[in-house]
Amino acid sequence: MQRPDHDLAFLLQYENVAWYEDGAVRILDRRRYPRTVSFVTCRDHRAVAQAIKDMVTQSAGPYPAAAMGMALAAYECRNESEEAQRAYLAAAAKRLSNARPTTAKRMARVCETMLEAADAAWRSGGRVDEAIRRRAIEANDRRYLRIERIAKNLADLFPQNGTILTQCFAETVVGMMLREARSRGISLRIFCPETRPYFQGARLTATVCYEMGFDVTVITDNMPAFVMQREHVDLFTSAADAITMDGYVVNKVGTFQIAIAAKHLGVPYYVTGVPDTVHPSIKDVSIEMRDPAFVLEAMGVKTARDGVKGYYPAFDVTPPELIAGVVTDRGILSPFALSEYGANEAYEVVV
Amino acid sequence: MQRPDHDLAFLLQYENVAWYEDGAVRILDRRRYPRTVSFVTCRDHRAVAQAIKDMVTQSAGPYPAAAMGMALAAYECRNESEEAQRAYLAAAAKRLSNARPTTAKRMARVCETMLEAADAAWRSGGRVDEAIRRRAIEANDRRYLRIERIAKNLADLFPQNGTILTQCFAETVVGMMLREARSRGISLRIFCPETRPYFQGARLTATVCYEMGFDVTVITDNMPAFVMQREHVDLFTSAADAITMDGYVVNKVGTFQIAIAAKHLGVPYYVTGVPDTVHPSIKDVSIEMRDPAFVLEAMGVKTARDGVKGYYPAFDVTPPELIAGVVTDRGILSPFALSEYGANEAYEVVV
Repeated sequence: MQRPDHDLAFLLQYENVAWYEDGAVRILDRRRYPRTVSFVTCRDHRAVAQAIKDMVTQSAGPYPAAAMGMALAAYECRNESEEAQRAYLAAAAKRLSNARPTTAKRMARVCETMLEAADAAWRSGGRVDEAIRRRAIEANDRRYLRIERIAKNLADLFPQNGTILTQCFAETVVGMMLREARSRGISLRIFCPETRPYFQGARLTATVCYEMGFDVTVITDNMPAFVMQREHVDLFTSAADAITMDGYVVNKVGTFQIAIAAKHLGVPYYVTGVPDTVHPSIKDVSIEMRDPAFVLEAMGVKTARDGVKGYYPAFDVTPPELIAGVVTDRGILSPFALSEYGANEAYEVVV
Repeated sequence: MQRPDHDLAFLLQYENVAWYEDGAVRILDRRRYPRTVSFVTCRDHRAVAQAIKDMVTQSAGPYPAAAMGMALAAYECRNESEEAQRAYLAAAAKRLSNARPTTAKRMARVCETMLEAADAAWRSGGRVDEAIRRRAIEANDRRYLRIERIAKNLADLFPQNGTILTQCFAETVVGMMLREARSRGISLRIFCPETRPYFQGARLTATVCYEMGFDVTVITDNMPAFVMQREHVDLFTSAADAITMDGYVVNKVGTFQIAIAAKHLGVPYYVTGVPDTVHPSIKDVSIEMRDPAFVLEAMGVKTARDGVKGYYPAFDVTPPELIAGVVTDRGILSPFALSEYGANEAYEVVV
């Protein structure tokens, strides 16, 4: 069998998945990808917020989706007075930001950046939706540059022939770290926990790894400790939905227990991302509890009998003492000294 | 909705699932239970061995299945000479014992006990298959008595109003510990990891807990650490496929990482069962690697793309330093002092 060996442009198609055009935002439906490539079309920004809430897009996906949602909101109110547009966009920013509670602060910053673009358009008399759209694309381009630097720093930690363990789906980070590894001639074996209940690890991470030409093995979420013990895992790495300034990582539920096991077994855990001044402390982060029904089914098939409850925290929190290093675009930092990173620019969302 | 509140007889129907009668062994198909109640009918002992290998029955189920399989083997060779019958049964014992590698030694002892029953029948001139069947039932009855004592000892550790975490399916132990808890007026909240890839936790453990009238919540296998941290779990308990004399627990994959997290978070882990002199050391236990294809699907639906590998260790090994106590029928022992248990009798399989 010929293995596809796509370059970065291919990978980014997974992420450039929210696009404002012709009065609509189209979002790749990651709940079904890669079995089915289908898009959710949002005709107003409320639908974009709902799509984010419903996890049509996940991980880093909601940030460009929200930015494009702001462009759509500007389109919706384009015939109103500037004052009415300001009020409309402020309400849209709030709605989009609060689609998912754990990431609300970071989302709010994305939306604020888009409001700045709107301001500039009002001053210059240009089209507001187009100005926001351009700003969203610029911000994303800056993000790619930053992720590329992160990927290079992470690849410095890879052994020449080694084994790594991932958690959930870190899209562009996964793609760029593997591109970097490949260009250095590094041979990696990659274990991907499947990441219940949505199977992002089995569906998305494993697909990227395979398509980048690496040896990839999916395991169930009860196997990471066994794999670290038996398969000589060199490092465990994940991205983060938030890295707080006091060194805590908020990421897909399961990260915490893998990090505990990694510490116990002497495997270093490196998280990729940028510490985030909107989260000075883990105390300010609330963990989103999602619909428990998702835990009671798998790939759409019910697993437990009626009457049994479910429980679904979307994220968990890994404390700094379990983290070997935070791999940023500016170098690998101790989780206990994240102020070393320096000031964040606007729209610094890097997942 | 009226909640069923069955007594032990109901529970035991989950376990009395292998039955020799009329030249066949019928085994409840636990891969499909409780969605579907169906039985696999084995017309010879080879089919019984295959059913065990295919996980038609799991956990403690294979032991009575193998015992009944020996009765069936005796039926198959009933018209041969005694010498030929001896050879046939010896071969059957070997085949049944080796159906799954990790439990081969314990299975061999079950089969040896059945060969002793056959010996007695040859001496007395009775029907060999009937003698084996009677011995299988007797052995199981002794087992129930022992499990009942284990359940009482475990219930001594339960708080009056508390929360416990399970792993996989411990059938009769679960039923008896909950019956005991109920009779003492203990109110428990129970969290059951779903136990991928077969979902025994979601399908079987949660069903027993619910039907015994307890508050039961299913979580995915990446959530135990989160639940222990946030939901004030008082203890983690599991059964074991083997407890070696040097204090190691062989149990469903995932037990090890939950035990690591439990230790890290200060939650005691109590394993139920009997230390087993057939396993003087963990060094003698080999972990069964099963068909990786099972990890690449969920409830029969494929999760990962073609080309991605799977990996499926059926069990993992938890070392004594992670175990707070081994709850036996003779009391709660330190995993470092299992010789305190004393001599095992034959057919001591207690899961």
